[in-house]
Amino acid sequence: MSEQHEKAITPRGEDYSQWYLDVIAAADLAEYAPVKGCMIIKPNGYAIWERVQAILDARFKELGVQNAYFPLLIPERLLKREAQHVEGFAPEVAVVTHAGGEKLEEPLIVRPTSETIMYEVFSGWIHSYRDLPLLINQWANVVRWEMKTKPFLRTTEFLWQEGHTVHATEAEADAYARQMLGVYEWFSREYMAIPVITGPKSDNERFAGALRTYSCEAMMQDGKALQYATSHNLGDNFAKAFNIQFLDDQNTPQYGWQTSWGLSTRSIGGLIMTHSDDKGLVIPPRMTNTPVVLVPVFTADNKEEVMTKATELADMISKGTGRLVKIDDRDHLRVGEKFFEWEKRGVPLRIEYGPKDIAAGHCVAVRRDTGEKQTLSVGDDIGGEVKNILENIQSSLYEVAEKRLKENTIKVDGWDDFVSAIENGKFVLAHWDGTTETEKKIKEEIGATIRCIPFTQEQEDGVCVKTGQPSQGRVLFAKAY
Amino acid sequence: MSEQHEKAITPRGEDYSQWYLDVIAAADLAEYAPVKGCMIIKPNGYAIWERVQAILDARFKELGVQNAYFPLLIPERLLKREAQHVEGFAPEVAVVTHAGGEKLEEPLIVRPTSETIMYEVFSGWIHSYRDLPLLINQWANVVRWEMKTKPFLRTTEFLWQEGHTVHATEAEADAYARQMLGVYEWFSREYMAIPVITGPKSDNERFAGALRTYSCEAMMQDGKALQYATSHNLGDNFAKAFNIQFLDDQNTPQYGWQTSWGLSTRSIGGLIMTHSDDKGLVIPPRMTNTPVVLVPVFTADNKEEVMTKATELADMISKGTGRLVKIDDRDHLRVGEKFFEWEKRGVPLRIEYGPKDIAAGHCVAVRRDTGEKQTLSVGDDIGGEVKNILENIQSSLYEVAEKRLKENTIKVDGWDDFVSAIENGKFVLAHWDGTTETEKKIKEEIGATIRCIPFTQEQEDGVCVKTGQPSQGRVLFAKAY
Repeated sequence: MSEQHEKAITPRGEDYSQWYLDVIAAADLAEYAPVKGCMIIKPNGYAIWERVQAILDARFKELGVQNAYFPLLIPERLLKREAQHVEGFAPEVAVVTHAGGEKLEEPLIVRPTSETIMYEVFSGWIHSYRDLPLLINQWANVVRWEMKTKPFLRTTEFLWQEGHTVHATEAEADAYARQMLGVYEWFSREYMAIPVITGPKSDNERFAGALRTYSCEAMMQDGKALQYATSHNLGDNFAKAFNIQFLDDQNTPQYGWQTSWGLSTRSIGGLIMTHSDDKGLVIPPRMTNTPVVLVPVFTADNKEEVMTKATELADMISKGTGRLVKIDDRDHLRVGEKFFEWEKRGVPLRIEYGPKDIAAGHCVAVRRDTGEKQTLSVGDDIGGEVKNILENIQSSLYEVAEKRLKENTIKVDGWDDFVSAIENGKFVLAHWDGTTETEKKIKEEIGATIRCIPFTQEQEDGVCVKTGQPSQGRVLFAKAY
Repeated sequence: MSEQHEKAITPRGEDYSQWYLDVIAAADLAEYAPVKGCMIIKPNGYAIWERVQAILDARFKELGVQNAYFPLLIPERLLKREAQHVEGFAPEVAVVTHAGGEKLEEPLIVRPTSETIMYEVFSGWIHSYRDLPLLINQWANVVRWEMKTKPFLRTTEFLWQEGHTVHATEAEADAYARQMLGVYEWFSREYMAIPVITGPKSDNERFAGALRTYSCEAMMQDGKALQYATSHNLGDNFAKAFNIQFLDDQNTPQYGWQTSWGLSTRSIGGLIMTHSDDKGLVIPPRMTNTPVVLVPVFTADNKEEVMTKATELADMISKGTGRLVKIDDRDHLRVGEKFFEWEKRGVPLRIEYGPKDIAAGHCVAVRRDTGEKQTLSVGDDIGGEVKNILENIQSSLYEVAEKRLKENTIKVDGWDDFVSAIENGKFVLAHWDGTTETEKKIKEEIGATIRCIPFTQEQEDGVCVKTGQPSQGRVLFAKAY
């Protein structure tokens, strides 16, 4: 173990940003790479990403989406085809100018996203309405040259899935974009235990080239928003730029209507920031391959018999829960050191099992989230009991996060109250006059942005918190990662 | 469907190379990308890669290997650290020189392989013998600027897994490199139905920077060899270049001993070339998500009742085989067109089921590999029967490939016989004087290379087929992809 793991974790109250970095180091999730702004996703961190992939990929496939793979390198001329898109991405691309020992005739862009290369190709795949809807997803790495980086939350290279679809009508494309946002919301709630507020973005925050961007916004423990996943209704902007046309059932040529939607390794940053505490990582049982660690308490003299009983117990729990139980039988660490290590790493439930427990026919279960200790009888029911505890941890983590979100989301009307709420790390529902100008002014003055226009927005007459101009409903403002 | 799919497949006997491209187009596996030397892996092709990933990943994990992710972009100085390695890869790298709108101070190499970036980082992970063995794998894309490309077999960008391990002793590293080669051989035999010849490479064909390279060599239908997967014993070359040291149990610093091993999307090219025929793709049942397609024979009048029975039959087969059964209920294609399409796409077993079959209580099963038709009673046993047929297809494909390999692998002693055997597309076991000079001369003159020194090599005195110098055993020569 490298020395960084021995470092104490800075408390959240002292330095939230340092706490985040300390938790990542303590749980051995990732580290900075010897390349600017990049990180190495270590096995503990990558295992979380593998859970994300397995759950989302299965769901996408149920919905008829097919995986494919498109090139990493995009000819510059393709990136330039859609005007808003290139304007949005040009400043942050990495460019290959030389290859095979020679200067390239045309520079190649390392993909920041794959709309352009995919849609150039889609135009050759689609001929008739029978080829629609086309539902494609790709698991891939992308590169965006970021100035300020932070592990998982914002890195020069990151991993993601990007879904890209083509539909026969605008209404179908919009419904599909919203359906996929719903998939992200479901995944976030049921697996990541993260409540989100969903809705369209303002024009100013739209994806470059999109007609409408929908997003999931989560609240971190410091009150900042994290854009957790986005889904875009691209309208026919790209279809026109890349000539994606089909013959409808009357044999009339029509442009396709498109969507794209993505979720990245950034979500792992959201997971860490939502649930973890000053002792280290806290991870929901459904997002880890190691929901239970069994720490047998033994000496050199009784190790063999304790391990025999511990293996039996681990098997019983595995069978009853359908989950793996890791046994920590290392000799060179003391029991307390093991407890400390698994705590930092966020394993949801620790089982302690030594000679006294064996004699008494029980074991001790300690929840990572609450620290609560329970004595469990070692019998036929133990698998079911552990399963219940894990489910309770999962739902309890969601409830805590939901309570935090509810308590810290407030309606504000006056400008002074607005400023103070934003500075106190609240999600603020406020009236806005609907102009990009006002939105930008607010961002410049106090660093808050419109996170989304919630689907749950009530129609309510009011006046803009900044300009006093009329408004028909409140939008969600916050500072954001 | 695009027009290329309607194109007839060139027979193997007429133009083998064009046949390969035609099969890929007909089965809709991949197409050329609008970037030099790159391809788009289409859903049908990517589904094969997902099978490869699922099978190998599960096996790696059973062996204690952990997945991680390292950056795509490697600082030039790291690539230069190991002298042989940079010499081998420098001519074929793609280089990022500009990013975020500025010229970079140090160029970044798009990874052609990840030894250098990983080992720079490993040196910080390893401190004590307790940190060993370190067993890391990465699923990733890599870029090598190739002049002559061919879908799957050789592309500028390809997908692969690269395993990288560090061990305490040279012997353990060598044993591990051989164990992982064994995993590839097992995967090739049991899943891909491809027999391989395994053994170390000659010095000239070693991986840049390795002490020893082991490979699996498969025979394609034109008699050319395909290097299917490789595993390298890296010795302590990289450990010394990247300062990977650990304290042994006596507290003495030691250099680590390393391996790396990889299998790529090239294997899909091997799968296509091994089993397919003049009618299109042939795919072993274990390598596809669509082992069975059910084509119901209906008219507009009886569609509903035929579909009801077809769905029942598909369910019975699914339950009995544990595999998905695809029902092709499209209205706009005739039955014959459907047969033709599934044939081109290589679906192992087609079930035909129409009103006459329903009345007679049977269905017709047609094997893709042999074209054999069987009438199967629709009853409780049908799942088991289909399962047997699928297993028979799987083993039969292996047997055909093994027979081809055996019949076309010959021992040759004189130079004229050697030249004629190579020109006739044989795998040739011949004596060699052990020098790189002779090996290069043979390659220049007739284009054959030493594929490997088979593990099964008998100790046998002889004289080099080219120079007449003494030799102690035969090595495997062939032309190769």
